[in-house]
Amino acid sequence: MYELMREIFPICRSITGNGVRQTLKKIQSILPIEIHEVPSNTKVFDWTIPKEWNIHDAFVKDPKGEKIIDFNNSNLHVVSYSIPIHKKMSLQELKSHIHTLPKIPDVIPYLTSYYNEDWGFCMTHNDFIKLEEGEYEIMIDSTLENGSLTYGEFLKIGEVEDEFLISCYICHPSMCNDNLSGPVLATILGKYLKEIKTKFSYRFLFIPETIGAITWLSKNEKSIHKIKNGLIATCLGDSGIMTYKKTRNGDNEIDRISKYVLENSKQEFNIIDFLPIGSDERQFCSPAFNLPVGSLMRTMHGKFPEYHTSADNLDFVKAENLEDALIKYSGIIFILENNKKYINLNPKCEPQLGKRGLYRQLGSQKNSEEKELAMFWILNQSDGKNSLLDIAIKSKLDFYLIKQVSDELLEHDLLKIV
Amino acid sequence: MYELMREIFPICRSITGNGVRQTLKKIQSILPIEIHEVPSNTKVFDWTIPKEWNIHDAFVKDPKGEKIIDFNNSNLHVVSYSIPIHKKMSLQELKSHIHTLPKIPDVIPYLTSYYNEDWGFCMTHNDFIKLEEGEYEIMIDSTLENGSLTYGEFLKIGEVEDEFLISCYICHPSMCNDNLSGPVLATILGKYLKEIKTKFSYRFLFIPETIGAITWLSKNEKSIHKIKNGLIATCLGDSGIMTYKKTRNGDNEIDRISKYVLENSKQEFNIIDFLPIGSDERQFCSPAFNLPVGSLMRTMHGKFPEYHTSADNLDFVKAENLEDALIKYSGIIFILENNKKYINLNPKCEPQLGKRGLYRQLGSQKNSEEKELAMFWILNQSDGKNSLLDIAIKSKLDFYLIKQVSDELLEHDLLKIV
Amino acid sequence: MYELMREIFPICRSITGNGVRQTLKKIQSILPIEIHEVPSNTKVFDWTIPKEWNIHDAFVKDPKGEKIIDFNNSNLHVVSYSIPIHKKMSLQELKSHIHTLPKIPDVIPYLTSYYNEDWGFCMTHNDFIKLEEGEYEIMIDSTLENGSLTYGEFLKIGEVEDEFLISCYICHPSMCNDNLSGPVLATILGKYLKEIKTKFSYRFLFIPETIGAITWLSKNEKSIHKIKNGLIATCLGDSGIMTYKKTRNGDNEIDRISKYVLENSKQEFNIIDFLPIGSDERQFCSPAFNLPVGSLMRTMHGKFPEYHTSADNLDFVKAENLEDALIKYSGIIFILENNKKYINLNPKCEPQLGKRGLYRQLGSQKNSEEKELAMFWILNQSDGKNSLLDIAIKSKLDFYLIKQVSDELLEHDLLKIV
Repeated sequence: MYELMREIFPICRSITGNGVRQTLKKIQSILPIEIHEVPSNTKVFDWTIPKEWNIHDAFVKDPKGEKIIDFNNSNLHVVSYSIPIHKKMSLQELKSHIHTLPKIPDVIPYLTSYYNEDWGFCMTHNDFIKLEEGEYEIMIDSTLENGSLTYGEFLKIGEVEDEFLISCYICHPSMCNDNLSGPVLATILGKYLKEIKTKFSYRFLFIPETIGAITWLSKNEKSIHKIKNGLIATCLGDSGIMTYKKTRNGDNEIDRISKYVLENSKQEFNIIDFLPIGSDERQFCSPAFNLPVGSLMRTMHGKFPEYHTSADNLDFVKAENLEDALIKYSGIIFILENNKKYINLNPKCEPQLGKRGLYRQLGSQKNSEEKELAMFWILNQSDGKNSLLDIAIKSKLDFYLIKQVSDELLEHDLLKIV
Repeated sequence: MYELMREIFPICRSITGNGVRQTLKKIQSILPIEIHEVPSNTKVFDWTIPKEWNIHDAFVKDPKGEKIIDFNNSNLHVVSYSIPIHKKMSLQELKSHIHTLPKIPDVIPYLTSYYNEDWGFCMTHNDFIKLEEGEYEIMIDSTLENGSLTYGEFLKIGEVEDEFLISCYICHPSMCNDNLSGPVLATILGKYLKEIKTKFSYRFLFIPETIGAITWLSKNEKSIHKIKNGLIATCLGDSGIMTYKKTRNGDNEIDRISKYVLENSKQEFNIIDFLPIGSDERQFCSPAFNLPVGSLMRTMHGKFPEYHTSADNLDFVKAENLEDALIKYSGIIFILENNKKYINLNPKCEPQLGKRGLYRQLGSQKNSEEKELAMFWILNQSDGKNSLLDIAIKSKLDFYLIKQVSDELLEHDLLKIV
Repeated sequence: MYELMREIFPICRSITGNGVRQTLKKIQSILPIEIHEVPSNTKVFDWTIPKEWNIHDAFVKDPKGEKIIDFNNSNLHVVSYSIPIHKKMSLQELKSHIHTLPKIPDVIPYLTSYYNEDWGFCMTHNDFIKLEEGEYEIMIDSTLENGSLTYGEFLKIGEVEDEFLISCYICHPSMCNDNLSGPVLATILGKYLKEIKTKFSYRFLFIPETIGAITWLSKNEKSIHKIKNGLIATCLGDSGIMTYKKTRNGDNEIDRISKYVLENSKQEFNIIDFLPIGSDERQFCSPAFNLPVGSLMRTMHGKFPEYHTSADNLDFVKAENLEDALIKYSGIIFILENNKKYINLNPKCEPQLGKRGLYRQLGSQKNSEEKELAMFWILNQSDGKNSLLDIAIKSKLDFYLIKQVSDELLEHDLLKIV
């Protein structure tokens, strides 16, 4: 995951344009995503797909003719969706188009102006205060023209049509935690799921944030009922503890499974209620859809000072944090795939386990071993209402043990699946 | 409020009689209440309206002929509803008719004998122990005759018939916290509501405790279904923290609103469950009616040592405590009036706020401002089920902000009312 | 109870055989239980009633011919259901049939081999390590033959068919807490209930654990719907605090009553959730039956080191602990018998208690006494939905007071029973 991140880090992405296409091509070399293009000006619910933006170069030259801002050094230097401009102007005029972060004076902020035609530069505050009076030359070689919005999609078809949605965004320029950590995790997870047999279908979306989710929902409205669980993958590479943000209803299966996985990780974690700011859960959980989509992250957007600045870079994200996050996503999928409900075929009293070789022969003062305990729990609770996760939670026994033992009971014809 | 209290403090009230009439006349000079008279012996459910009691004078003279108890000094000296008597008797005989509080020896207790024809005097224990042997002359110049029970009522008619009931009692003699704090607050609140346009109708009752509530319910049984919320106003002038006593069911709108107002007051407060002792909530919450009527007080009856004694006087109650209580009542009414439910008219994804001038133009690392946050919360939750108070509670944003922002969204045709 | 325990302690019981019959005969001399015999090989659900086991003598003689294990000293010396054997063998061969507890070296463990034909001896680890090399003579004079499984049953018929089940087991050899504490408590409780008039019917079972419960359920499947509450009586004589283990659903009447009794005992206690290990609640709470049967014990099986060893003897159990447990069982039955629901016959406002002599004549600053409080609570809550226990819990008044006052209100025609 970290290697892929390193490769796609330098690309200048925005909500449309060639940066997105390059990024998706790179992902496609690992996971066979389908790439969709939706023309500018297409109506998507209350929104309209904007013109496509591309940028080739940009700079600001000081009165001495030296480049004090050079797009080639950092693609954060230009406000995303800046219109083309080439002009000389006084420092004073220029300043009204320059954005800095006085409180974090050594980083370049990340700004966008998608829906308001404007232009601007971003720079460190340290450099900003050194600017001298005089005439500056500014140049942004960008295009804002009819084109299309690009997104990627991968569907792993499982035994059933019910889908697990994993959505991430690919619209930020060179930033790692927010944003590349999501796509790299989704790519590797998708590649893994592609290789194995699954019960559920898994849909991966690589979309520009907000407008991409709106576009996808608008084009797929008829089939979104298939989404039974979902997660937004974002901010997964920082060194903070895991954070799970609940779905809008807060009591869906994905909420219960995510809580279980985090509680059983023996690591600290946060669980927070749904709130209508954040990433694309805002769209998936809008009132007409109200999809069971939560968000599993490390530190939430806006809660780390590197957020939306040049400090959210390849040093800020660690490979081991990405790995750990992938383990959590895999754990959730493992439980989801195996969270079955059974019916005890001998529901009147306990079946005689001893005659089937499932129980110790000698009754003694010893407490039941974990495996015997698991058998009793599964048999007692398998009335068709309790899932294996419910039983794991009630019994405080590990889900993996419960799953193994239920398989063994199934083989002995003591259970049938609901 | 304090001025009105000072004026009506000296009047000798009881559950019937001219003291009540005088008090209601005084209130009528501020709020146009309707005054009702219900004849003695009228059957009201399981009860019968008692004879009307009036008192003109009363004293006890010691063996030297000096008035050691004089009704003109304090109307608490005579047990309420004492029958007329004029007689000489020994100290011993007299003592069986004298009531004191040995543990608070410097105050006169307040006692009543409404439904048992008897007579008695109350005095401080300090004076009581000074009484010397000899013959005493006692005189109570009272009448207990057929007459009527008197109560006052004011109805502010709103846009809808649904009513908010505010009930207080006007049957205690010279006592301020329990009792005058309720009527003075209700009078001023009623005067204020009379002047403004309201959605709901507001019914104010000024009744003798218990028998008055029973009488009113008996006469208005057919229309009490209009009462959708209510509060008993009592003990509102002492210096204790606010106390909200829940309705019988405990989960009515008035319970949620009162809790919200107290929690957001930045002051300490108590919330207690319903219990069937107290004031007229006992009748309004009797099982056949079970009306959504709570009680908002400062210190609950019986929990302050001045309760039902001469120490519950004009010094014990402070004008600022009454003001503070009025703010709470007004806050509750403000929320009730504005606690609407809306439906988001663009429920599929978020509407594009930017094109309506409702959203900042430049995307940056800044968190949403409170107003933007409020917009997202209202749009996300307005599915017709959540009220503005529900949204304020979930979002932890101030109700007033939520109300303001919902008005703005309504103007932009982004919401419609349920 | 302790006397009865002392008498039946020496008997060698197992899940079948004459030890059970002797024990039941002894109980029958106090409580007229019906004794049932169910033939070996009868199918009971997934199980088959095993052969009947009886034992007359057993020993192990050392190379010198001295009895180093003698069944007459402790019936725990022989693994229950050991097949007959008389043989000489080396120490090494013998050792594979000897069971000890190295961590508690001075006690004899209790072991069983009901469903696997085998033989074995149990002894203290201290004695075991003294065994010398040489030839040992071992003898078990037992029979394992077709016969029957024996259990006892007593039904006290009450006014209604609804039953309270009290089940205990009578299958352990000489052990007191687990197991004799249950049968002795059940016997004395049954004797007491037999003498009095009860509303509910009370069914007492004295059965071998597991196979007995399965047998009884199998034979009585059609009538078990009458069981509305139940308790497994076990481990009631040790000095630990009381433990209530909930029914499978956890919210039955027996759960609420047991919790109330323990909370109001002014003693420490435990309440634990249902778990499918333990005693016969495993069968009564199997998914097809899911009967409202909890378990009221002192220290739970396996949580005291004396469990299933020779240390669980007449010294370990104290008469006062049995008495205290009986008080709890009686308290539960008292509440169950009296936990009625009433309807207030004057549900519109409060009835006038004063005219019925139920209320003090003089209104004063005093708070209501407990009895008045109880009246107000009962009248306010008696809408046909709240039981007297519900009212006791809400009002925090004692159930006994609530019951007494409701009787008084009933006499005054202020209530009627639902």
